Amino acid sequence: MTAQEKISLSIENHKHICVGLDTDIKKIPSYLHKCSDPIFEFNSAIIEATKEHAGAYKINLAFYERYGISGLESLMKTVEAIPNDILVIGDGKRNDIGNTAEQYAISLFDQFSFDCATVNPYMGEDSVMPFLKYEDKISFILALTSNPGAKDFEKLELKNGELLYQHVLKYVNKWNKNGNCGIVFGATQISELETSIGSLDTLYTLIPGVGAQGGDLDAVVRTFTGAQNNNFLINMSRNLIYADNSEDFALTASEVITGLNQQILAHFAG
Amino acid sequence: MTAQEKISLSIENHKHICVGLDTDIKKIPSYLHKCSDPIFEFNSAIIEATKEHAGAYKINLAFYERYGISGLESLMKTVEAIPNDILVIGDGKRNDIGNTAEQYAISLFDQFSFDCATVNPYMGEDSVMPFLKYEDKISFILALTSNPGAKDFEKLELKNGELLYQHVLKYVNKWNKNGNCGIVFGATQISELETSIGSLDTLYTLIPGVGAQGGDLDAVVRTFTGAQNNNFLINMSRNLIYADNSEDFALTASEVITGLNQQILAHFAG
Repeated sequence: MTAQEKISLSIENHKHICVGLDTDIKKIPSYLHKCSDPIFEFNSAIIEATKEHAGAYKINLAFYERYGISGLESLMKTVEAIPNDILVIGDGKRNDIGNTAEQYAISLFDQFSFDCATVNPYMGEDSVMPFLKYEDKISFILALTSNPGAKDFEKLELKNGELLYQHVLKYVNKWNKNGNCGIVFGATQISELETSIGSLDTLYTLIPGVGAQGGDLDAVVRTFTGAQNNNFLINMSRNLIYADNSEDFALTASEVITGLNQQILAHFAG
Repeated sequence: MTAQEKISLSIENHKHICVGLDTDIKKIPSYLHKCSDPIFEFNSAIIEATKEHAGAYKINLAFYERYGISGLESLMKTVEAIPNDILVIGDGKRNDIGNTAEQYAISLFDQFSFDCATVNPYMGEDSVMPFLKYEDKISFILALTSNPGAKDFEKLELKNGELLYQHVLKYVNKWNKNGNCGIVFGATQISELETSIGSLDTLYTLIPGVGAQGGDLDAVVRTFTGAQNNNFLINMSRNLIYADNSEDFALTASEVITGLNQQILAHFAG
């Protein structure tokens, strides 16, 4: 299945929650520490408990690279444990000159078999194109992120009156000739999301920042449904995977995602 | 030794060439393919032949990640093969929210033992700070890169008349309280380098883009010596490591770097 087919399946079934596997060994239940690969054991249990409800999984590469080779082993086993019809996003926010970006695209799409990658746009068009050559994959390009530092550069006003992230959005729309572009837009930026929603309709939108970072799920969903746009995935990491630190953590995660799905569905029923 | 001590040693000895180990298996001499780890064999020979002349080594992570676990094994062996008193830059251009950037900093500085990292600034201050907490390491933050796409965002004019990369430079100077900030400035951007040189004096400057990308070595060196600024490293990758595709590749690389050092030294003697 292509990334587009997988995301369509999720959206049709109103599965908009992306489970963020930012797995930190210090935050998982301590009884797992005695396993040979605690991170994979944790991920595997979370995947098993949430796979009927998840619209996608997002693996943040930083949390695996920090353990070197054993971290990559956990990562690869985790990707394999995710059912083939569910979207898997490799969240690495890579960006480099074309010759190098090509290596990153090979790494994410061919070597690690991700359906999607997150890409930082700072270096411009030729640094993004190698990702977009993969027409059956989706590249989510950072527009406006959820963190406080988003104000430092992303929200700078340009001479023409646009903000930098709005200018990035224009480029992403231009790059989207093959329907394989997405954007990252932080849930903490609701008024900016409301302003930009009209320019997002053909772009897949990945929304981090709900939960630990303070973004409001209902406000995000309302903005999309108000614009009759269903092309969104809301990432939940810490508030979902670490909702319970006991041996019942996977069961609790399934209850959390079920509750979130109901909360989202209410907007569509209304 | 701290990163600052290592770079000072290079600069004092007028060793300004950074050897870029962007090692691509398709470009190394084919007789190496029969080794168990051709990439490491190649790197190891290049390091042995250039270590007396190199100001630093830069390992571009993309070229190793694309081979997954075996690539990381080559990378780790390569870092170990570099003498302890020479700076090793982990070129990954990472950037993410603070909680995640912290994992990347652990990965680059603790797990892979790099002296320096390259960092993309797009997401702003809190995405860069976890790298800067390592006071004995140097973080080279992207300002103006060498590729054509640099014009798309990095050179955008802001409402206040600055260009985006100039605004980034102001932030990097502000972040440099502990003398552990550097910047990346492309050799293909000579007129911009001349304009910015006055604001770079306390920042270490890493300059890619000489050689395959078309930047002019003499023009770069002239700009720095003209400003009495010695804090620069010029990266050479393809034109140095692939200068010769025969069994003499390492000897040729040593001749190339020796020639480059003489070319640079002429500017200081003048």
